[in-house]
Amino acid sequence: MNLYGGQVNKLIEELEGLPGIGSKSAQRLAFHLIGLPEEKVNRIATTMMEARKNVRYCAQCCTLTDKELCPVCANKNRDHSTIMVVESPRDLAAYEKTGRYEGVYHVLHGAISPMLGIGPNDIRLKELIKRLEGDVNEVIIATNSSLEGETTAMYISKLIKPTGIKVTRIASGVPVGGDLEYIDEVTLYRALEGRTEI
Amino acid sequence: MNLYGGQVNKLIEELEGLPGIGSKSAQRLAFHLIGLPEEKVNRIATTMMEARKNVRYCAQCCTLTDKELCPVCANKNRDHSTIMVVESPRDLAAYEKTGRYEGVYHVLHGAISPMLGIGPNDIRLKELIKRLEGDVNEVIIATNSSLEGETTAMYISKLIKPTGIKVTRIASGVPVGGDLEYIDEVTLYRALEGRTEI
Repeated sequence: MNLYGGQVNKLIEELEGLPGIGSKSAQRLAFHLIGLPEEKVNRIATTMMEARKNVRYCAQCCTLTDKELCPVCANKNRDHSTIMVVESPRDLAAYEKTGRYEGVYHVLHGAISPMLGIGPNDIRLKELIKRLEGDVNEVIIATNSSLEGETTAMYISKLIKPTGIKVTRIASGVPVGGDLEYIDEVTLYRALEGRTEI
Repeated sequence: MNLYGGQVNKLIEELEGLPGIGSKSAQRLAFHLIGLPEEKVNRIATTMMEARKNVRYCAQCCTLTDKELCPVCANKNRDHSTIMVVESPRDLAAYEKTGRYEGVYHVLHGAISPMLGIGPNDIRLKELIKRLEGDVNEVIIATNSSLEGETTAMYISKLIKPTGIKVTRIASGVPVGGDLEYIDEVTLYRALEGRTEI
């Protein structure tokens, strides 16, 4: 339905293609953009293009950055002998927000998923193995608690164990503040299995 | 927290400023954009800038369009003597989707709201009054059923009535498929007041 003439529709279509943006939000966004001052729209558009052009993988941990090394890897005060393996830069961001992790990271950019045809070579695993040649004491696997995340964790653990480096997995259990009655059985079972003495 | 270096953060901040996009979706969108092929990102950015530059108000009904007249106003088969007054281009789109309205529109771009300090001169009302000098039989007021929408409807109705042109208001009542028990009292009362013989 061509209601507004080609250019508005084209903008709505482009926005609809983005993740989490349905047809209603695309319309709202498009009208919002059209209502903004021209220099502001140009600034947003330029930021998009420049970020796309200049952002790349950190040479060490593979997270996204616009420098050779990301701020975490470039920080000499972090413990570079402890590597936490995560699936995405967003997971890295989540752990950084805790403010309690002193080590560095490795971002896989995905997880092994036979269902989706994603194998070990499709994620940044080779880069992780290469880092183990350096001075590494512990690899903490913090992939998601999904089928793919667990598969990936198992795979990495088997790969690293022969090297003698300590491999750990973050705990699975009841989230803090979580109400037991709303938590699924698998999580409850995991929480029981992983119980510790107090 | 500077996790990714300046350019990724800058992009996330720009996206967070858009309506309906919180900090999590901004992150997800930014990473999605950075993962797209460069020419695709450039195309989206260019579409944004061009739409902003070329889109303007339709010379007749004030909806958004990239031509002098919007497709509805330019269509000679529509009934140009019936004008439906709506608050926004999205409302126009909603009525066009019904496929049952043959007349033309007038988009106010807002509603009168003493609370927000929006008066009759802040919306496209003068343009509507000007159109009434032509050959107009009926003005259908389809502003929202909110306090502002009703205020605007009353105001326009009082303004037009002395000219002798027929002014109508779209019906208020129970939505089709609506379950009475979940509908608010005001709507139920309106539905009762607006009852018709069957």
